[in-house]
Amino acid sequence: MKRNVIVGQSGGPTAAINSSLAGVYRTAKDRGYNKVYGMLHGVQGLLEERYIDLSEHITNELDAELLKRTPAAYLGSCRYKLPEICDNHEVYDKIFEILNKLEIDVFIYIGGNDSMDTIKKLSDYAIVYGHQTRFVGCPKTIDNDLALTDHTPGYGSAAKYIGTSVKEIIRDSFCLEYEHGLVTIVEIMGRNAGWLTGAAALAKGEDCSGPDMIYLPELSFDIEKFVEKCRKLLEEKCSVVVAVSEGIRTKDGKYVCELGTSVDFVDAFGHKQLTGTASYLANLISKEIGCKTRAIELSTLQRAASHSASRVDILEGYQVGGAAMKAADEGDTGKMVVIERLSDDPYQSGTEVKDVHKIANDERLVPREWVNKEGTYVTDEFITYVRPLIQGDVSPIMVDGIPRHLFKKGFHK
Amino acid sequence: MKRNVIVGQSGGPTAAINSSLAGVYRTAKDRGYNKVYGMLHGVQGLLEERYIDLSEHITNELDAELLKRTPAAYLGSCRYKLPEICDNHEVYDKIFEILNKLEIDVFIYIGGNDSMDTIKKLSDYAIVYGHQTRFVGCPKTIDNDLALTDHTPGYGSAAKYIGTSVKEIIRDSFCLEYEHGLVTIVEIMGRNAGWLTGAAALAKGEDCSGPDMIYLPELSFDIEKFVEKCRKLLEEKCSVVVAVSEGIRTKDGKYVCELGTSVDFVDAFGHKQLTGTASYLANLISKEIGCKTRAIELSTLQRAASHSASRVDILEGYQVGGAAMKAADEGDTGKMVVIERLSDDPYQSGTEVKDVHKIANDERLVPREWVNKEGTYVTDEFITYVRPLIQGDVSPIMVDGIPRHLFKKGFHK
Repeated sequence: MKRNVIVGQSGGPTAAINSSLAGVYRTAKDRGYNKVYGMLHGVQGLLEERYIDLSEHITNELDAELLKRTPAAYLGSCRYKLPEICDNHEVYDKIFEILNKLEIDVFIYIGGNDSMDTIKKLSDYAIVYGHQTRFVGCPKTIDNDLALTDHTPGYGSAAKYIGTSVKEIIRDSFCLEYEHGLVTIVEIMGRNAGWLTGAAALAKGEDCSGPDMIYLPELSFDIEKFVEKCRKLLEEKCSVVVAVSEGIRTKDGKYVCELGTSVDFVDAFGHKQLTGTASYLANLISKEIGCKTRAIELSTLQRAASHSASRVDILEGYQVGGAAMKAADEGDTGKMVVIERLSDDPYQSGTEVKDVHKIANDERLVPREWVNKEGTYVTDEFITYVRPLIQGDVSPIMVDGIPRHLFKKGFHK
Repeated sequence: MKRNVIVGQSGGPTAAINSSLAGVYRTAKDRGYNKVYGMLHGVQGLLEERYIDLSEHITNELDAELLKRTPAAYLGSCRYKLPEICDNHEVYDKIFEILNKLEIDVFIYIGGNDSMDTIKKLSDYAIVYGHQTRFVGCPKTIDNDLALTDHTPGYGSAAKYIGTSVKEIIRDSFCLEYEHGLVTIVEIMGRNAGWLTGAAALAKGEDCSGPDMIYLPELSFDIEKFVEKCRKLLEEKCSVVVAVSEGIRTKDGKYVCELGTSVDFVDAFGHKQLTGTASYLANLISKEIGCKTRAIELSTLQRAASHSASRVDILEGYQVGGAAMKAADEGDTGKMVVIERLSDDPYQSGTEVKDVHKIANDERLVPREWVNKEGTYVTDEFITYVRPLIQGDVSPIMVDGIPRHLFKKGFHK
């Protein structure tokens, strides 16, 4: 007889992470599992025995639809890294004691690189010590930097939000004319991988010239050349919009966002302050060129904006949740579900399972050939890659003018 | 025989300003006017004889629908203030010379306080010097601070975006647990009027506790009390979200965003830098309480996010455009269209015209009784006022996953 399932969410939240949770729940129920537990705040919460019975939260099909449209990890998340097995047996003993008590057959973890490290270690431990629980990972990250998968759920919705917002910012930037022009710097998430920043190019189309420059963190950032390019562009047009990754670094490896702190950069309380990349560059341009500047950080909204989610993304999130559950049910362990792209146009994709040992702690960057020679824009190949992932909408369920999310009964809302 | 119309947009852009432009154009055509010109960048552009023939841009009904969904002033905007008539006749002579040359019967200006000053002066001048052109203003501002009108087009869409985004930010803020908690400060536009900041309360509902505090610029901001309130809240919950107006000031009238510059606050280039209100407060809280903090500026997106526009707002924007044109056609001059609220539930509104002399340069603030005694939240009256204005959606016309805007033929895009 099938016993129980436990599912957790880990790492930074996305607009699709709860769709995967809904997929896991549905497939677990369809395949005859008894209880489906949700660990609160991932493995960290599990170690404190904080979990819920998901059937008390997803009580009908409308709840499931709401969950798919709810941003940010419904169960709460964590950034907890398990110790090496040889260094600390106690943590593992504790986890398996809890799993045994809850009669868990299947453990699903929805997350990114670090979370797959958790799946790897737990499945290794289970095999070595003869535990029957199966451990399968479900990919999730707006950063899109997981190895072996074509892309990750969460990325498509973030890319759609970025493309839409950058387009609106560009329109706005042409409204008012400034004597010496306007330079707008839009700062986008992704410390090491430029997948999100490159998505700013989606703003470009028949009705919009798109951002003027796009700087990914994969390539070193030349401040002088950047200033000169802005100066030159301002001779031709009154508004210049630049998309930069928060993680761009100079040739010697220094983060641009840290340059502002090289001299006395303290507030009234003697507290050293980190300027963002955008605001550092906006100040620099204003000083060097004398034009008006604007710094815009897309902030946590780029990962939380469910109201403009991509349909492809939300459906694939659901699909990989179901596929992870299916794989575990059929005996897989130490695996992660990946998405394979079958064709670009019409876009078709499928899922497979791959060995998590080949995925954990790895990082997939934007290929050099998908950025132009100068390092100032993504190429058409990049657009062809990302375009199918932002297609379609998931209409929010509006209540009194605001999108409704699934209520968290008895825990933080 | 009816001759021509000219229409301009002025001041900060909104998500509804182009819907008013579409309304003006449609009614002008319906009422038998010959040409409808659009001045580029308002009166400032008009003085340089920069204008377009709108019929070359709105060529069919689909164009009009796209225009309604296009953020930011389609014609471009300006912040140009006309001199007093007695101080400088030349500017007026020049404007009327151009209007005569273009055979303009009706001049419509879509804008806020300062723009209504333009309508006032031009209509006064026309009456005194016997010009036949009629001048009518069409209200527009996300700030919602125009006198005599229940509200202004542009406000509803901005309020909807703010309510939606703050709700998503709150969800996101509960994902990860931080040892000493998390305080998120969301900075919202509105230097003097708190209509936009108050709209953060729209996030509150059955599924969301809403922001914990809301600070409007109408009341002085007590930094010490604010820090204490955050400290106390963190004893009860792990995430605190605060909405602040960019314009909050301390008791002695100093902008909070300027406090950071009171000591050496210069970047590597010796350039004095203005911290935003949110980032100043986030740094302060981090220093005083030792918790994790996050500063989020909703930036120009709150006025440009057409992708989440309110249907009531876009329709009313269209309606006031038509009403302004109708009033001018029927002989009004020196007037502005206002919106009258006929009932809250069901929401009903109508338009009237009022003397622009009673509107120009005035500013309507949030009534004191719509903020709680402590000055830390808006009351239910505020919510009852704003809630009808955010109802309904205007589905973006999606092309390849991104909302389409009306193309600007031959001028900046």
